[in-house]
Amino acid sequence: MDLFRVALPNPEQEITKAEIVSIGTELLLGQTLNTDARDLARELSELGINCYYQSVVGDNPERMEEVIRLSLKRSDLVITTGGLGPTEDDITMGVCAKIAGSELVYHAESERRIKEFFAIRGLVPSDKSKKQVMLPSDAYIMPNDAGTAPGAVFNFEYNGQTRYLAVLPGPPMEMNLMFQRELKPWLKRYSRHHLHHQYIRTVGIGESQLVAKITDIIHNQGLVSIAPYASAGEVMLRLSVMAPHDMPIDEVNALIQPVAEQIKERIDEYIYSEDNKPMAEVVLSLLTKEKAMVGFAESCTAGLAAAELAKIPGASRVLSGGVITYCNELKHSLLGVSREILAREGAVSESCAIAMAVGARSLLKTDYAVSITGIAGPEGGSEVKPVGTVWIGISHRNGSFARSFLFAGDRNHIRKVSVLNALDLLRRCLLSRE
Amino acid sequence: MDLFRVALPNPEQEITKAEIVSIGTELLLGQTLNTDARDLARELSELGINCYYQSVVGDNPERMEEVIRLSLKRSDLVITTGGLGPTEDDITMGVCAKIAGSELVYHAESERRIKEFFAIRGLVPSDKSKKQVMLPSDAYIMPNDAGTAPGAVFNFEYNGQTRYLAVLPGPPMEMNLMFQRELKPWLKRYSRHHLHHQYIRTVGIGESQLVAKITDIIHNQGLVSIAPYASAGEVMLRLSVMAPHDMPIDEVNALIQPVAEQIKERIDEYIYSEDNKPMAEVVLSLLTKEKAMVGFAESCTAGLAAAELAKIPGASRVLSGGVITYCNELKHSLLGVSREILAREGAVSESCAIAMAVGARSLLKTDYAVSITGIAGPEGGSEVKPVGTVWIGISHRNGSFARSFLFAGDRNHIRKVSVLNALDLLRRCLLSRE
Repeated sequence: MDLFRVALPNPEQEITKAEIVSIGTELLLGQTLNTDARDLARELSELGINCYYQSVVGDNPERMEEVIRLSLKRSDLVITTGGLGPTEDDITMGVCAKIAGSELVYHAESERRIKEFFAIRGLVPSDKSKKQVMLPSDAYIMPNDAGTAPGAVFNFEYNGQTRYLAVLPGPPMEMNLMFQRELKPWLKRYSRHHLHHQYIRTVGIGESQLVAKITDIIHNQGLVSIAPYASAGEVMLRLSVMAPHDMPIDEVNALIQPVAEQIKERIDEYIYSEDNKPMAEVVLSLLTKEKAMVGFAESCTAGLAAAELAKIPGASRVLSGGVITYCNELKHSLLGVSREILAREGAVSESCAIAMAVGARSLLKTDYAVSITGIAGPEGGSEVKPVGTVWIGISHRNGSFARSFLFAGDRNHIRKVSVLNALDLLRRCLLSRE
Repeated sequence: MDLFRVALPNPEQEITKAEIVSIGTELLLGQTLNTDARDLARELSELGINCYYQSVVGDNPERMEEVIRLSLKRSDLVITTGGLGPTEDDITMGVCAKIAGSELVYHAESERRIKEFFAIRGLVPSDKSKKQVMLPSDAYIMPNDAGTAPGAVFNFEYNGQTRYLAVLPGPPMEMNLMFQRELKPWLKRYSRHHLHHQYIRTVGIGESQLVAKITDIIHNQGLVSIAPYASAGEVMLRLSVMAPHDMPIDEVNALIQPVAEQIKERIDEYIYSEDNKPMAEVVLSLLTKEKAMVGFAESCTAGLAAAELAKIPGASRVLSGGVITYCNELKHSLLGVSREILAREGAVSESCAIAMAVGARSLLKTDYAVSITGIAGPEGGSEVKPVGTVWIGISHRNGSFARSFLFAGDRNHIRKVSVLNALDLLRRCLLSRE
């Protein structure tokens, strides 16, 4: 039995307030985007735990202690990320142990795990890894299933208050896995209210136009609050309700559903997902249901649309493949786009998009084929066809068609939004809206 | 003349310490990634201004005031972002004015600008915009060239110290433009030292192994400091030197170069870029120099490698196109991979990778062809070929070969790292290292 595996205490009181302290000089220098704080903040908000402050501090013992102590004054739970690596400037565990009145001792189980982690990779841990097996004597130790540095949860009295200090590694994959497997299940038992959401995802309408269509619903919100979030080419509406943790899910849904229905009546034509599924997953489901295979013919997106679909596990059920015809010669030789079309109307045209889709469907022997051809910039635009002009074509058993779009933004934004709209056109086609 | 356009004061003393306070409930809920803090932190570090703390707080007047006051105690300059919008919960300007002992008054010039901003877009400002023209009476007002909310710089005595409080909008495009046009030129005059960097990017070696090879150089660092940063499949070394702002660039380089040379001697075989260029740009340069065209044959990455190269403007000079053969049938029909190879050795094998590359080079008529075939998971792994097994093949005029890799991580990590290593293999081939 491992003496150091102190069990996490049972909840005596609710954890209502938490803070995130991100540790790392690379954050202060702007070398790294703080995705850890975003991920943790989202998780805490889902758990109904309030988070009023976030802080970032470097690998400096005095300032780190100052920041963590201030957070412990204000909140029941403080979660730190980062500074658990094997090098000398990774000092978080020591600083946290000091604050909690604990000390670092050798932890055999963690050493065994680190050796195993290296062995699988045909490596031997260096002497530096020894630092990562010096762990607090009276904290709950959290194993790291994606790396070497274990985490810990301290539980102690601070200024007469019960406090929890959870110490997580910085690399996002390690942090997220440890949070999901260790901290989250435990936190769930400490929170008496959970935030429930429904997400309505839309494409083809801007944020302000969408909000204008449902302003009265947003303002009349009772228990259900509504918030719009815009990202590349799409707007998501989040409907939220804070419910007691033991409220049956049917009752929660009975609160959210009427509001969702009201919204759907107004903006139905733009909605592609009512359960927060990304576009690629929606399209994959529709194709699976129809037992149909799809292929792509991509120019300016150069493979990004097929790759987006392939992100989803199980994509092989519906994705045969694709052709990337970045140069015009391949549009002709592989897809059979006539030289006349390329010369007369150009590669960014309705005729070319349709010919590409028809050619791809025949070459790839799929039920559906999607083509994308456009001007992503920064060069290549003209008065008639400015940067952002994109033609998307679809070919299927009953015919072929193409649509034109004009997207704003830089090269990679245009490529990303083109992919979203190409998949959306396929979705509409699968739903026989087109 | 605009009475409210108080001039920014001339530098009396150097600004050495700054803090960033990010304002917005969406950050606390984890709905938004804090790119503003990253961007500002990077800029401040380049300007040689130390930034020891970052904070995030919501749109709550008491907590916002508390956080800004604490920052003003610790640092010469505090920069806030966010909370300048037209809605009622946007209160940053009012809170900052209160702290600085200023008050908000009507600002005619800003109203004129907002009307103009809307007029260009064929719109009329709503009554809500009136809030955004109530601005501090004795601060320097910064126009917003990408949106409606102006920013401000307050200059005042705080606890007997000269302090600057700069208030910027939250939307990243507006924030960055205002910083570049207004705040940065002014801050440059306040900073007597600038930080210079050289970046060395490597692939094919883990962070700890890389650090082990240069530990003594890292520890013997004099004026040049060295920091490693790991990201998906690669490790970057940053060499930094803080130099007086009037030191000629030759002298700065004379400090960094000897250290860079020492490092290169040790890890040369892993380095792909010494000037912070991403892999795709390095490959594009090499292909351009050789006037060679490349094509791709992708299975598990499904177009991601070609799309990565196409990210870089000017990719059409070197990228002909590619074939995405997600299903085995297309590997046979399009690329000519024999049914025997597929049946006997499987799609994830040396023979298949080579046959795919050879087939692609012939089909796409390119000088080089790169193939990727692997098991990205979560399904499809076996004892002999576990998830993460990837074969990368190259075909060129002098022959063809393939390499096998075993990558860790989830489906999309494996796909991303596969692309990086495929481009790296092509790079080595172009440099005739392979």
